[in-house]
Amino acid sequence: MERIEPKRSLKLAPYPEALEKLFKVFQSRSFEYESISVEESIGRVLTEDIIANVDAPERDIAMVDGYTVKFKDVSGASAEKPVLLKIIGKFYPWDNPVGVKLLEGEAAYVTCGAPLPEGADAVIMVENAVFRDGKIEVRRPVKEGENVIHAGEDIRRGDIILRAGSILRPQDVGVLAGLGIRKVNVARKPRVAIIATGNELIELSKREPARIADNYALIVSGLISRIGGEPLRLSIAPDDLDEIKRRIKEALESADIIVTVGGCSMGEKDFVPDAVNSLGQPGVIIHGIRVKPGKVTGFGMVRGKPIVMLPGLLASTMAGFYLIFVPLISLYMGLKVEQLLPTITVRMGHDLDLDEKPLYRFLPVRIKGQEGKLYAEAVPGGPNSLSRFVKANGFILIPPKKRLRREEEVSVTLYSKDEFSRFFD
Amino acid sequence: MERIEPKRSLKLAPYPEALEKLFKVFQSRSFEYESISVEESIGRVLTEDIIANVDAPERDIAMVDGYTVKFKDVSGASAEKPVLLKIIGKFYPWDNPVGVKLLEGEAAYVTCGAPLPEGADAVIMVENAVFRDGKIEVRRPVKEGENVIHAGEDIRRGDIILRAGSILRPQDVGVLAGLGIRKVNVARKPRVAIIATGNELIELSKREPARIADNYALIVSGLISRIGGEPLRLSIAPDDLDEIKRRIKEALESADIIVTVGGCSMGEKDFVPDAVNSLGQPGVIIHGIRVKPGKVTGFGMVRGKPIVMLPGLLASTMAGFYLIFVPLISLYMGLKVEQLLPTITVRMGHDLDLDEKPLYRFLPVRIKGQEGKLYAEAVPGGPNSLSRFVKANGFILIPPKKRLRREEEVSVTLYSKDEFSRFFD
Repeated sequence: MERIEPKRSLKLAPYPEALEKLFKVFQSRSFEYESISVEESIGRVLTEDIIANVDAPERDIAMVDGYTVKFKDVSGASAEKPVLLKIIGKFYPWDNPVGVKLLEGEAAYVTCGAPLPEGADAVIMVENAVFRDGKIEVRRPVKEGENVIHAGEDIRRGDIILRAGSILRPQDVGVLAGLGIRKVNVARKPRVAIIATGNELIELSKREPARIADNYALIVSGLISRIGGEPLRLSIAPDDLDEIKRRIKEALESADIIVTVGGCSMGEKDFVPDAVNSLGQPGVIIHGIRVKPGKVTGFGMVRGKPIVMLPGLLASTMAGFYLIFVPLISLYMGLKVEQLLPTITVRMGHDLDLDEKPLYRFLPVRIKGQEGKLYAEAVPGGPNSLSRFVKANGFILIPPKKRLRREEEVSVTLYSKDEFSRFFD
Repeated sequence: MERIEPKRSLKLAPYPEALEKLFKVFQSRSFEYESISVEESIGRVLTEDIIANVDAPERDIAMVDGYTVKFKDVSGASAEKPVLLKIIGKFYPWDNPVGVKLLEGEAAYVTCGAPLPEGADAVIMVENAVFRDGKIEVRRPVKEGENVIHAGEDIRRGDIILRAGSILRPQDVGVLAGLGIRKVNVARKPRVAIIATGNELIELSKREPARIADNYALIVSGLISRIGGEPLRLSIAPDDLDEIKRRIKEALESADIIVTVGGCSMGEKDFVPDAVNSLGQPGVIIHGIRVKPGKVTGFGMVRGKPIVMLPGLLASTMAGFYLIFVPLISLYMGLKVEQLLPTITVRMGHDLDLDEKPLYRFLPVRIKGQEGKLYAEAVPGGPNSLSRFVKANGFILIPPKKRLRREEEVSVTLYSKDEFSRFFD
């Protein structure tokens, strides 16, 4: 039997240093964008400021159903001295009263949202006037501009409506469409190739004794799609250097970012870092980070494309995904991590002891409501526990040598926006 | 000129009464479900409890790289009295050591995740033993089960993994796939037809002076897709009773739920309630709710399908959408509103005065971070302000005769899960 020893030893980088190296790689990146139809832009990231090219509303409109008047005509109106005004027309929101002018002593019926004719400067609510024989009787004054929405009151031509770097929501898209904007420039969705490695893995559609379903790649792929990337799940690579090189090469053709799962630890079968290094400069940039779990996570660059090496045990895979991949893809899209993943402040549900090692800890937690407040509770589990991540909603990143106390406020990053639906289980 | 007066008057129902009527309609509903591939089930609602049909892990596995032993063999091991064990083999996670039995005095090399041979009951970490000439020298004892993950320790056959009514997240889907589950029963996505009504409206692709882009339907459609419905935007219906009836009839063929926008106020051109009543029993169930804005919102049932009538001014459309449509679609899918929309507790950023009328108020608010805490600030705006909903992140539902005080804790329902990306603008 051959000698049993680690294939490599890792010099662990402090986590902040690993992040700094990530920032350096992306600091001078220019974003690739594409022009798409506004109607299809929900969830996409704007790469331009959107400036209003029209006023909204485009002209003065009635805020209520009623009668539009010149406010001066009724300034002396009272129950004792009612003012009579002649109704000259009826205007609906779809009317275009160009050329119609309200003269002294005249009024017009308007419905909510109708444009006002020239010369009109106030609207009397329908219940505050009496209509009879083509005239209205007004018994109290109105203020100038009362019940009128003025042109440009909501949005003024030239206003910045939405800024570059915003993720578009349904109402944003509706507002853009309402202003007559048909196309917007958005960041291209990064295509992320996922390569799972390991002789023990088997495609999900198959099943064999002693082989493990390739479900981590499925989790990674689902999480990527939930934060705005376009995942491409490639077939499983066996523990073979040439085969892993071939897969990464293939992925470099079709993807913007590559994620490997497994094969980056210190064992004799861990070929991923070698493959990355053999494919071009600079190759591996960081391999080994002072975090727990997830310490064998790494990343590199080959042919200008980032490669993230995630460890192959679920707790470590998740740690590497959230601590390295998510910051990387947010930089790639010009976003902050907080824009991709909700971060909430809750109270710690229990004490958590110090870990003496100088490591950041990735602690899976579950959010629980208790007497109207939200608490975080650690969810324990082995390195490849599946149930742990079904029970947990997010994680706390605990800095080195920090202990947590019950009732202390902690910041929890949720695994995705989908976690809210589970707070009340 | 004809007489100008409201076409109908509305008897406003208290909001809790309207909700109660909604619950009654749905209380005996059975859910339509479909069986879909696990890989495509992210975001869908489970309609069955998922029970594990295997243990996970399926057998005892090593938690670390090392040597698996019988713990009794090394119970007396120390630096002075090291124990020598013979290495009988090497096991990887993909191995299947059926029939291999560890005898007294034997050990085997195992990598993390590898199944243990029969008779092995502990694992010594690789760094805690010295390998030489086919043997290891062990200098300290291990506990029974140390560094072993036992069969069923993570998930036991028969455990309920996920309950009916859960919205599936990426990690859930990965876990189901890992357990060999290929198909799940999920609620069919409700198809929601959206009919905008109004002569003033024009399709988004066109543009005419004095006509208004049909952007509210686009907003409603986007919000529906974000909460798990399948929106179908139908073409605009003019203010014509027969035409509106025809559209609703058409929608009844293809959709599960119908939403109309506009045409349900008290004016002469408001034909939607008449159309709903003319199409079958019971027709309109509630029309007019003591909420502000949104009071002309209504709902009914025709041919067993719910119809929600939303008002046609944006603030009212949004109020009707969140106060009636969202509770309705959550009942339809067997969910709680909190599963569809995040609700967060923040502090009020300012005082808010009493409204003397006995109305629930739908108050659009913006979430702002300040000294590490989140605050809600009212976002003012006219009844059809577009910018208001670009600035706001959610709403507070204020019960009648309630005033809010600065620093008071309030519950904010976000417009969708997408709002998180905007908290840091």
